[in-house]
Amino acid sequence: MTVARAAILGGSGYTGGELLRLLAMHPGIEVVEATSREYKGKPIYYAHPHLRGFYSIRFTSLDTSRIPDVDIVFNALPHGVAVEYTGHLIDHGIRVVDLSADYRLKDPEAYRSWYGMDHPREDLLEESVYGIPELRREEIRGARLVASPGCNATAAILSLAPLAVAGLLSGPVVVDIKAGSSEGGAKPKRGSHHPEREGAARPYSPAGHRHEAEAEQELSRLAGTSVRVSLVPHAVSMVRGVLASSHLWVEDLDLQEVSRSYAALYGGERFIRVYPRGSIIDVKNVVGSHMVDVSYSYDERTGRLTAFAALDNLVRGAAGQAVHAANIMLGLAEDLGLGYPPLKP
Amino acid sequence: MTVARAAILGGSGYTGGELLRLLAMHPGIEVVEATSREYKGKPIYYAHPHLRGFYSIRFTSLDTSRIPDVDIVFNALPHGVAVEYTGHLIDHGIRVVDLSADYRLKDPEAYRSWYGMDHPREDLLEESVYGIPELRREEIRGARLVASPGCNATAAILSLAPLAVAGLLSGPVVVDIKAGSSEGGAKPKRGSHHPEREGAARPYSPAGHRHEAEAEQELSRLAGTSVRVSLVPHAVSMVRGVLASSHLWVEDLDLQEVSRSYAALYGGERFIRVYPRGSIIDVKNVVGSHMVDVSYSYDERTGRLTAFAALDNLVRGAAGQAVHAANIMLGLAEDLGLGYPPLKP
Amino acid sequence: MTVARAAILGGSGYTGGELLRLLAMHPGIEVVEATSREYKGKPIYYAHPHLRGFYSIRFTSLDTSRIPDVDIVFNALPHGVAVEYTGHLIDHGIRVVDLSADYRLKDPEAYRSWYGMDHPREDLLEESVYGIPELRREEIRGARLVASPGCNATAAILSLAPLAVAGLLSGPVVVDIKAGSSEGGAKPKRGSHHPEREGAARPYSPAGHRHEAEAEQELSRLAGTSVRVSLVPHAVSMVRGVLASSHLWVEDLDLQEVSRSYAALYGGERFIRVYPRGSIIDVKNVVGSHMVDVSYSYDERTGRLTAFAALDNLVRGAAGQAVHAANIMLGLAEDLGLGYPPLKP
Amino acid sequence: MTVARAAILGGSGYTGGELLRLLAMHPGIEVVEATSREYKGKPIYYAHPHLRGFYSIRFTSLDTSRIPDVDIVFNALPHGVAVEYTGHLIDHGIRVVDLSADYRLKDPEAYRSWYGMDHPREDLLEESVYGIPELRREEIRGARLVASPGCNATAAILSLAPLAVAGLLSGPVVVDIKAGSSEGGAKPKRGSHHPEREGAARPYSPAGHRHEAEAEQELSRLAGTSVRVSLVPHAVSMVRGVLASSHLWVEDLDLQEVSRSYAALYGGERFIRVYPRGSIIDVKNVVGSHMVDVSYSYDERTGRLTAFAALDNLVRGAAGQAVHAANIMLGLAEDLGLGYPPLKP
Repeated sequence: MTVARAAILGGSGYTGGELLRLLAMHPGIEVVEATSREYKGKPIYYAHPHLRGFYSIRFTSLDTSRIPDVDIVFNALPHGVAVEYTGHLIDHGIRVVDLSADYRLKDPEAYRSWYGMDHPREDLLEESVYGIPELRREEIRGARLVASPGCNATAAILSLAPLAVAGLLSGPVVVDIKAGSSEGGAKPKRGSHHPEREGAARPYSPAGHRHEAEAEQELSRLAGTSVRVSLVPHAVSMVRGVLASSHLWVEDLDLQEVSRSYAALYGGERFIRVYPRGSIIDVKNVVGSHMVDVSYSYDERTGRLTAFAALDNLVRGAAGQAVHAANIMLGLAEDLGLGYPPLKP
Repeated sequence: MTVARAAILGGSGYTGGELLRLLAMHPGIEVVEATSREYKGKPIYYAHPHLRGFYSIRFTSLDTSRIPDVDIVFNALPHGVAVEYTGHLIDHGIRVVDLSADYRLKDPEAYRSWYGMDHPREDLLEESVYGIPELRREEIRGARLVASPGCNATAAILSLAPLAVAGLLSGPVVVDIKAGSSEGGAKPKRGSHHPEREGAARPYSPAGHRHEAEAEQELSRLAGTSVRVSLVPHAVSMVRGVLASSHLWVEDLDLQEVSRSYAALYGGERFIRVYPRGSIIDVKNVVGSHMVDVSYSYDERTGRLTAFAALDNLVRGAAGQAVHAANIMLGLAEDLGLGYPPLKP
Repeated sequence: MTVARAAILGGSGYTGGELLRLLAMHPGIEVVEATSREYKGKPIYYAHPHLRGFYSIRFTSLDTSRIPDVDIVFNALPHGVAVEYTGHLIDHGIRVVDLSADYRLKDPEAYRSWYGMDHPREDLLEESVYGIPELRREEIRGARLVASPGCNATAAILSLAPLAVAGLLSGPVVVDIKAGSSEGGAKPKRGSHHPEREGAARPYSPAGHRHEAEAEQELSRLAGTSVRVSLVPHAVSMVRGVLASSHLWVEDLDLQEVSRSYAALYGGERFIRVYPRGSIIDVKNVVGSHMVDVSYSYDERTGRLTAFAALDNLVRGAAGQAVHAANIMLGLAEDLGLGYPPLKP
Repeated sequence: MTVARAAILGGSGYTGGELLRLLAMHPGIEVVEATSREYKGKPIYYAHPHLRGFYSIRFTSLDTSRIPDVDIVFNALPHGVAVEYTGHLIDHGIRVVDLSADYRLKDPEAYRSWYGMDHPREDLLEESVYGIPELRREEIRGARLVASPGCNATAAILSLAPLAVAGLLSGPVVVDIKAGSSEGGAKPKRGSHHPEREGAARPYSPAGHRHEAEAEQELSRLAGTSVRVSLVPHAVSMVRGVLASSHLWVEDLDLQEVSRSYAALYGGERFIRVYPRGSIIDVKNVVGSHMVDVSYSYDERTGRLTAFAALDNLVRGAAGQAVHAANIMLGLAEDLGLGYPPLKP
């Protein structure tokens, strides 16, 4: 097998580390470069001690005047940091999976409103593909630029997609998210200091969470009409994992229709496990893997329908989904390097 | 001070243990008896090693033919186990705080429907007082029988009460609960086995949770009209604590009116801390105490209003609330034995 | 009761917060001042949200030119920061409980060697009392200056004290410590970032831990001869608690003599619970309280004796022990404000 | 590649689940049968929900009168349950990796003394190979029967092996173990009930832990003389992982000699990472992988030497080590199916 050459921008954070972990096992992609301002010149294991022995390269510093000799670039920098460089790479024929939020929204106005800055490369927004492979497989195949989705947005969208297709998202919808501490990144701060976070349960961004924009964009596309979705994320006491509980109300729900919609959308998908109605799903069953577990419950008495999705925020919610997209972009087997089971207990 | 004599039925579970812990510090109530089938004849510390040195009594076995020589009985047995004995105690002039679900619902039909059995003492249902002190202070004062609320129901009700009073609960409402593992009780089971529960986030009872009945009953009373509420509890990776995130939709919300309603209901309450709108509350800030922290956020874009309440399920959600009610029933200072701060970190 | 006035230097860290928590419940001591460089001018709850509603004072900044109008000062600043000011307070007749390491070692040479600086107030070292109340009760009673012991040292000393008295510490001794994350303080850092600390088990300071000096000083005093002790602390995945497992070797141990030594030293102590030989003790049974649980096991086959002590690092290992000493210094009942049971589960 | 056929006895516990997880990714071994009394006839995911979608076989019940049509059997049943059946399989030409304690001790007398029963197949004890591949590679290669070591014993032995070879184990040695809750198995019990275990730190088996026998046997072989080792395991608040801190005393240690001994024994080993002296190792850096991290510290002042080893109890401490041995027995590449990196954070 020809092995594709890859670079990672922002290799010392948790997303960068997870890309390095996944690609260390990947037979079709080799990481030849990883950048880090903080660890420049240092071996990979300085930032990621668990990867000691798995890499011989050292971190480089990002040089935006240079075009790396690679087939694909994974941009794991925060949004706004490398938005122009991503465009520059595309211009020079390098495919990019951008894990920041920079190329997710199609509408430059929406980007301005949610992220507080003008987009310097509006010309690429239309072309960029929102990279949930199960929902955009064909567009990813030919893409130069994939915008890899946010972890909370991925959970929200995958919990609700079959209901969007079934036309059930016309009323109020709230996605109540329970998220692990790794979602906040590798940089220590008060809220994720162990004594403060262990045993905690608290909302954050209780209004106006930015992932609402991408979730609405994608669900509206699936629904064929404008969909409104609230996201309310909560920090809970675990390290990895996102659980989305998406609540909406439907009178006299046609359960068979819902079931058919799940089957139609996810039936043949290796990485999405659809559970029978009323089943309990748990982030514990997907952690460490690219799997997404989905299920739903319907409460007839109140007409409340809750759709659940559980995933690993660093794999499916970030690095794994990016690798999944890269596999498709590079013409590799779609599941290459992603097929290992979850780690439990 | 005259010290009231108390008995605890079901003293070896977590609620029983918490009653013993709280009453060990209480200057106005002394536990003279605690029953336990499993630990009968054994010292208290067999069931509760942390209480070694705090009690000299030993567990007795429950004898329902006997009326204990006490001023008040705390019934911490599961629902259905001592429902007749509670009535029997009342008949013999013993005040009871019943922490089971047996005397919470006013409507015998509702009891039958939610708990699957006929209520043997329907005559007491009307008289029994649903024991959230801040909402039923006057009725508790003269009560012979207080039904101490469920932990999830307490969180749901206290998050929504000011909105019920303000007439905002006419549309769909869902209370998304995040609960600690101690809520499931002291008996080991698969779902709360440490390797299975640590790092978990999963729904349980995703439809038809029994606390819906009592939450609706109480909120309807406050609203002056019938209120529908869904409760969706989730097991998360902490030991103590309940966080309720109660979602509803209101167009053009009058923020000042909401603020006034919180102030009117909770303004003078020592044990309820109202945070400014948009504040982050956290179970970490109340654990180990009788405090309830409440806050709310409003998302104008979608009209979504989320009201939050955080409490310790074993104190405010069980034993503390029972002691609070007992203080009032016995004519003691309301905050006696309950005034210590939360334990953090 | 006359209420003593107290000031806390360094009120925004975890030790300061714990002093504020304990003294909020203390009927004989009132905190009239608490300093914090970071939170100067802010209400207490800015640093300690769990204490919202318990204090009306605001943090002040430390002014070392001023003598506060108080009966006692708790110095919760790091070692080296207020060493001269502590002396200054003593000179002006203010009693001090110093929770830093500054006045623990009697030998100025030892201070220089372990802490890397000359001691500016060598004159006070002899007078200062090492404040484990059960071991130095009489000296604390008349003391102007109490050096409150380190958490790991307290656990080490209390596990070994009866063996020191029994003359069993002449051979090699290693104290293997398992410590919670709150021991590292309130300041976020990589090693205590939640994703890095949750699930961790790792040594820190595997050679030359500073608490060795004070542990040896105190154990040598009890043994009446020079004792050598190694301390090897480990960071484990909990927030509160220290467990010391102190290993030594004794051939043909006289078990009854050991038992007598425990009884003689700890028999009448309210806050030390001696378990029968071979019993399992657990930090879970002491967390949130001033209790110390001690036990020991003897393995005849190898002659290995392990003495265990479990305590809460923030209460018995810091703030509680300081309050205990203060009670004695101020002539209050020794257990005032300290008698509440542990919080479990 | 020819794929070997394997059966797992005791497939529903944590060790069985981990074998199933590892072998699901293994290109050279296929699980064709897995037994479970409890889950007989049920799909694998009934016991291991995280493996949903990875296996189509169903659990069978163990039939000791039958010889399965496989190349190798992994016995993951508790000791004493299948000791005769293991022998029976060997007699019929089936290779066995026995993960129970039944074939670890060479001396039938020792087995009787530590496990309280006569060994029914003493004839196989001499032949059976104690399966730490790095220490017994050649013997495993030709073995019919490998006794896969206990997790605590593996950590103890791998921490001390270079010191045994260097002749440093003649004095007192204590291995202080910190172990995760998964070590106790999948069956719920009080001590591993989440509310009881989360935040705990406590010894268990503080004298006479059975793994002492196998650790002494193996270390004595390496030392060429009889070695005495105490093991003191502690339950701490994590799910996966074992950290061994092995304490001993050596005056005037020759640091270079120690360093050479580590290099000689572990230098070429892919799965053992030797850290520079004084380095901090952490179970977090090996969890989810077959890696063992080792390091040591020397405290000159007291002559105390501590050797550390960190590993994942379910991979390196059980299933991974068994697969490693099986790879060698079956003539496969030694690292087949084991080369993935640890999962962190």
